[in-house]
Amino acid sequence: MSDSLQRLKEILGEVTDVNRASAVLTWDQETYMPPGGVANRADQLTTLRRLAHVRFTSEEVGRLLEEAEGEVGGLPFDSDDASIVRVTRRDYDLARKLPTELVAEIARAGATARPVWQKARQDSDFTLFEPYLERNVELNRKVADALGYRERPYDALLDRTEPGLTTDQLEAIFAQLKGAIVPLVGDVARHSEAVDDSVLYRGFDPDAQVAYALQVVIKLGYDPERGRQDLSTHPFTISFGPGDVRITTRVSRDFFNECLFGSIHEAGHGMYNQGIGQNLDRTPLWSGASPGVHESQSRLWENMVGRSAAFWRYFYPSLRNAFPGPLKGVDEESFFRAVNKSYPSLIRVEADEVTYNLHILLRFELENELLEGSLKVADLPEAWNARIKSYLGIDVPNDREGVLQDIHWSGVSFAIFPGYTLGNLMGAQLMEKARKELPDLDGTIERGEFGVLLKWLRTNVYRHGRKFTPNELMERVTGQPLTAEPWIAYVRQKFGALYGAKAAS
Amino acid sequence: MSDSLQRLKEILGEVTDVNRASAVLTWDQETYMPPGGVANRADQLTTLRRLAHVRFTSEEVGRLLEEAEGEVGGLPFDSDDASIVRVTRRDYDLARKLPTELVAEIARAGATARPVWQKARQDSDFTLFEPYLERNVELNRKVADALGYRERPYDALLDRTEPGLTTDQLEAIFAQLKGAIVPLVGDVARHSEAVDDSVLYRGFDPDAQVAYALQVVIKLGYDPERGRQDLSTHPFTISFGPGDVRITTRVSRDFFNECLFGSIHEAGHGMYNQGIGQNLDRTPLWSGASPGVHESQSRLWENMVGRSAAFWRYFYPSLRNAFPGPLKGVDEESFFRAVNKSYPSLIRVEADEVTYNLHILLRFELENELLEGSLKVADLPEAWNARIKSYLGIDVPNDREGVLQDIHWSGVSFAIFPGYTLGNLMGAQLMEKARKELPDLDGTIERGEFGVLLKWLRTNVYRHGRKFTPNELMERVTGQPLTAEPWIAYVRQKFGALYGAKAAS
Repeated sequence: MSDSLQRLKEILGEVTDVNRASAVLTWDQETYMPPGGVANRADQLTTLRRLAHVRFTSEEVGRLLEEAEGEVGGLPFDSDDASIVRVTRRDYDLARKLPTELVAEIARAGATARPVWQKARQDSDFTLFEPYLERNVELNRKVADALGYRERPYDALLDRTEPGLTTDQLEAIFAQLKGAIVPLVGDVARHSEAVDDSVLYRGFDPDAQVAYALQVVIKLGYDPERGRQDLSTHPFTISFGPGDVRITTRVSRDFFNECLFGSIHEAGHGMYNQGIGQNLDRTPLWSGASPGVHESQSRLWENMVGRSAAFWRYFYPSLRNAFPGPLKGVDEESFFRAVNKSYPSLIRVEADEVTYNLHILLRFELENELLEGSLKVADLPEAWNARIKSYLGIDVPNDREGVLQDIHWSGVSFAIFPGYTLGNLMGAQLMEKARKELPDLDGTIERGEFGVLLKWLRTNVYRHGRKFTPNELMERVTGQPLTAEPWIAYVRQKFGALYGAKAAS
Repeated sequence: MSDSLQRLKEILGEVTDVNRASAVLTWDQETYMPPGGVANRADQLTTLRRLAHVRFTSEEVGRLLEEAEGEVGGLPFDSDDASIVRVTRRDYDLARKLPTELVAEIARAGATARPVWQKARQDSDFTLFEPYLERNVELNRKVADALGYRERPYDALLDRTEPGLTTDQLEAIFAQLKGAIVPLVGDVARHSEAVDDSVLYRGFDPDAQVAYALQVVIKLGYDPERGRQDLSTHPFTISFGPGDVRITTRVSRDFFNECLFGSIHEAGHGMYNQGIGQNLDRTPLWSGASPGVHESQSRLWENMVGRSAAFWRYFYPSLRNAFPGPLKGVDEESFFRAVNKSYPSLIRVEADEVTYNLHILLRFELENELLEGSLKVADLPEAWNARIKSYLGIDVPNDREGVLQDIHWSGVSFAIFPGYTLGNLMGAQLMEKARKELPDLDGTIERGEFGVLLKWLRTNVYRHGRKFTPNELMERVTGQPLTAEPWIAYVRQKFGALYGAKAAS
């Protein structure tokens, strides 16, 4: 290896170490930190993040990167070294394009807006939050301007989170999704009595739920020797390296889905990171391909595996042993149906598989309209409520359950939401391919042989880390770029069967 | 404030943040990190420590320090700014005197020797460890040479841990201690039947012990809003700032002392750090005055408070409520006597108040002899065993329970041990002064009014952080430098009373 590339890798390794240290501090903050620790922790994280940023955006990295680019020219596109240099170049240019003052202003704006948003949500009073959101929209515009774009400002933001995807491409996909989902939602609503989910609310001992969930994710393939599960207010996955990828979950006595499906979701993220090649450790490639691709794995394991009939064929007997009280008189088929109950609801994070993408579509549209100025912040609640009514057929009773529900807009972070829908679509696209290559996939799941699917995902997706963009990865694995078809086919088939033949039309 | 001092403080604040981040990573490593995390964590800690070291020892800090020294010349010795500059100068010069290669060699030597020591201890085979200890002795000599000293190499090492103290001063103190303790050990041994501690081994529910210990330390004054208690193999205290000072404990069903006195010991360290002035936060002064002074607070709370008759007057009723089974038929006086049982033993960390300092004396002597070349590493086990026999009157059956018991010598860290004895002595010296100024001190303890003592310690010791050297602090608080008299008077009085009048002679 050349001296420049070697030296570049050393610096990237250091930056990785500092970022992982920040991650440990964040994990601790969300799990065990005492209340008094807030101010000290903020200082520590600010310092670590600044150190990592200064080191990464230094002139030295720029020089080494240029030299390294000259040296890896002859290597295959997917070789480690060529990919490290290519992805580092993308990160470096993005990081250098944002002026330091803008980065600092964004951090301050987020820190200021966060508590105001919390108060506004609590009081269900959008006017409190309005001026802060105005500033955040303006800052998102500034970020887009600094990064540069041809036609639509959203492109600049999207390219940062989901490189290679464009706003136009997403609009086409969402249009296709809307055309498929809205009628399906109507069909399901007309047959809502077909699925009874009352069993989920019967009261499940919280400690037993957490223990059962951990047992399940270990069986799926999450390695507890290289991770652990703790409790936190909002479940998350966080990685400190190949040997330490942690998940958290939450638990409610009165609603079964929260803990188990939360744990499986995070374990999907966790197995992804546990499966990234050791050869990519301490480089910018030791990470998921994009937030969307990462979400494809959490959703794939949560929904396409965890909410499948085959999954419950295997797990239901042990679940019934663990919770004999609430599951008395409930058979496997009824339980499988219960965890797949679909109905239009107000809150995104509680939405089922069918309606979830409509919540994202709404946000994607509104972010674009705000950014391009066709919608004023003051008119946002009205626009929100009208679209919920149009897409889901329900009324929004207050802003707390409407426009104020998500934390995202309290920071300067437009173009994050599409990743959730991209995750659903890419998960289905990958699963369709896996089914072709693993004809007995459902059989393996029924028998608890989850390693078959995990190995396929590791080989095709996980081990590459961040080498490929979402489209590159989809092309490489499935032979075509991102498409909504497999997901649409999947929900039509699954919910058609659950709710009666009519819905499958 | 001048620009130079302001800029210096900013850099010191950053260095503090990075060091505190390392501390969070260390805490996690000892409490919750999964086994797979070891290698990633080592990388992260190496990087953070290097960043902090490079930043602190930079030419820029040297220049700012010189400028700041010119500016604080007119300030009082104990002012914050004068003290920050004075202590930073000491740290800076020490850090710059050690060549980077030597620091790296020490880190490598420790990392290599640690597992060998573990194996040697497990197999009770000193010859395995011998060559590694030879190298560590040699490296300790190199450190002493690099730091510089007039007569005795130990002075250089000691000045780094307990600034201002000399080897000669310590030798005189240890001679005085030996003269007082060795006869007392004999007296106690002749009346050993006077104290029965069998109750401590009756079996105490571990979870209840941990909960009780936490309740006790909170009552003493440890603030759980700015800290927390977890379990770890070896108890420790670690601080991430004024708002987050954590302690750990361990627990044994079959030996009561381990958990409660371990917790009180660590809470002593914890209350010290929780009491350091906010004005010193993010400076090198936000820390204890020295390891010895820090140990004075853990030992003071553990032994002079936690093992006092007044303490048990207050706590015994609640202890009996918490553990009615094992404490059946045991009265307060018997329990107080049991936790103060004294007998010569092989293991330092299990030693009682009377014999503990003899374990340190032995190590202090041997470290000096190794460093000055009058003792060869090969002859160390023999010298160890002979001195244990001479000081404590017992035979060492194997090296595992002898010369291989402590982790310290597997690293390059001579001159750490004296801090334990200094802690005992300074704790007694401070307590003697506190008793003069708080005549009803025992009364307040009996009534559970621990805030009275805590406030005195905060005002006189804790709030100053690392402003003063051990001798400066003792002079300032008690009117005289470090002395062994108060401790000798304390053990003679306490153990004389416990074991019969003869011992008090």
